[in-house]
Amino acid sequence: KIAKIYLVLFPMHLNHIFNSFLVCPATEKHVKKYLHQEVFLVEESGEDYRNLTLPYISSQSFSVQWVHNILEKKAEADRIVFEDPDPDTGFVLFQLQDLYLIAIVHRRDVKSLRDLTSEHLPLLTNIRSKGEDAIQRQYGIPPRKLCMYLHYQPSYYHLHVHFTSLEFDAPGCRVERAHLLSDVIQNLQADSSYYRNCSLAFPLRADDGLLLRFKEAGKL
Amino acid sequence: KIAKIYLVLFPMHLNHIFNSFLVCPATEKHVKKYLHQEVFLVEESGEDYRNLTLPYISSQSFSVQWVHNILEKKAEADRIVFEDPDPDTGFVLFQLQDLYLIAIVHRRDVKSLRDLTSEHLPLLTNIRSKGEDAIQRQYGIPPRKLCMYLHYQPSYYHLHVHFTSLEFDAPGCRVERAHLLSDVIQNLQADSSYYRNCSLAFPLRADDGLLLRFKEAGKL
Repeated sequence: KIAKIYLVLFPMHLNHIFNSFLVCPATEKHVKKYLHQEVFLVEESGEDYRNLTLPYISSQSFSVQWVHNILEKKAEADRIVFEDPDPDTGFVLFQLQDLYLIAIVHRRDVKSLRDLTSEHLPLLTNIRSKGEDAIQRQYGIPPRKLCMYLHYQPSYYHLHVHFTSLEFDAPGCRVERAHLLSDVIQNLQADSSYYRNCSLAFPLRADDGLLLRFKEAGKL
Repeated sequence: KIAKIYLVLFPMHLNHIFNSFLVCPATEKHVKKYLHQEVFLVEESGEDYRNLTLPYISSQSFSVQWVHNILEKKAEADRIVFEDPDPDTGFVLFQLQDLYLIAIVHRRDVKSLRDLTSEHLPLLTNIRSKGEDAIQRQYGIPPRKLCMYLHYQPSYYHLHVHFTSLEFDAPGCRVERAHLLSDVIQNLQADSSYYRNCSLAFPLRADDGLLLRFKEAGKL
């Protein structure tokens, strides 16, 4: 295990690896493994999510302990740029790079975009407005120069929103993985179960366990 | 004017300029001009489109003669990979780079994503299925490794769909400009006027005439 290499698992963007940020420790072996993987675009219906993806996520019990540590200030508290402590609509704004932040919600019952309904609109609009304000104050970047989006599939199943400068060529802002916060809000305003029912396309590496589930079910 | 430099106008991706492809001739001055522009994210409601964007597009009368030349085989016919000649649902599949193609529709009455309604579903699903087939035959790339999307704002106001390999780090596939074809089809199936009414976010350079219109209207 080499001293401290951190690898971000954006399957599409390993040519941006020099841009990648700190999420989880990785060995040289990991780095190599992720460099040479084929990628497939999966289309997941709402039913596929319930029958394939949700059981897979649950069976893996991916740890989000490191997220809880951030929320509880047990780790990397110096990277917290802003906090709204409200248990329902609050979040921590966490700096990954100069122009790359994430809003991590305090609620622990929202795994991803798929769980969002109109019930979560106050949470999402709060993240948008207070996140924009905090970034303008802290970095002088006006809202019109910000890109705010969610990933699906996310790297970890605890709801978070990405904030990057429009002028920053962020990894992971590609259309097949990113969903603009403004679109998410708009779609939920029109239809509370939009993300429960819609088909969502996302890329998976050839060695991803979830891809195997889709293959076994004849969905690829 | 230098011999034949071609520049693609993806404001977000000038660090990808080495990847750019042939659309319209550019001088060295153009290249420099586009290298140093601030970029802003505009949110355009359906009303903004009708009041600001559509009059602007019309007043500029951007030429799409070069597109018509391709459709009529008067130019670059050797780059046509496939054609469906149907006047309503047909298109030309045109190769820009090895792993980057565009489907240009034969219809001349659809400017962009904003004009699409459920009336255009046969066109869009035809582009998807015949485009996928042609690319599989010609390049051996299966549909699951393809990314198909539309731009809004597009570079030119004649409907076209982008086809890239998932593994190709294409310029212009960023979430704030690209709309997955599968999402467009799905949204139109649920609501024929989805793209007439929704708000669409897109990036504009500081020197874009359209940005000035939004500024003058107090929308920025």
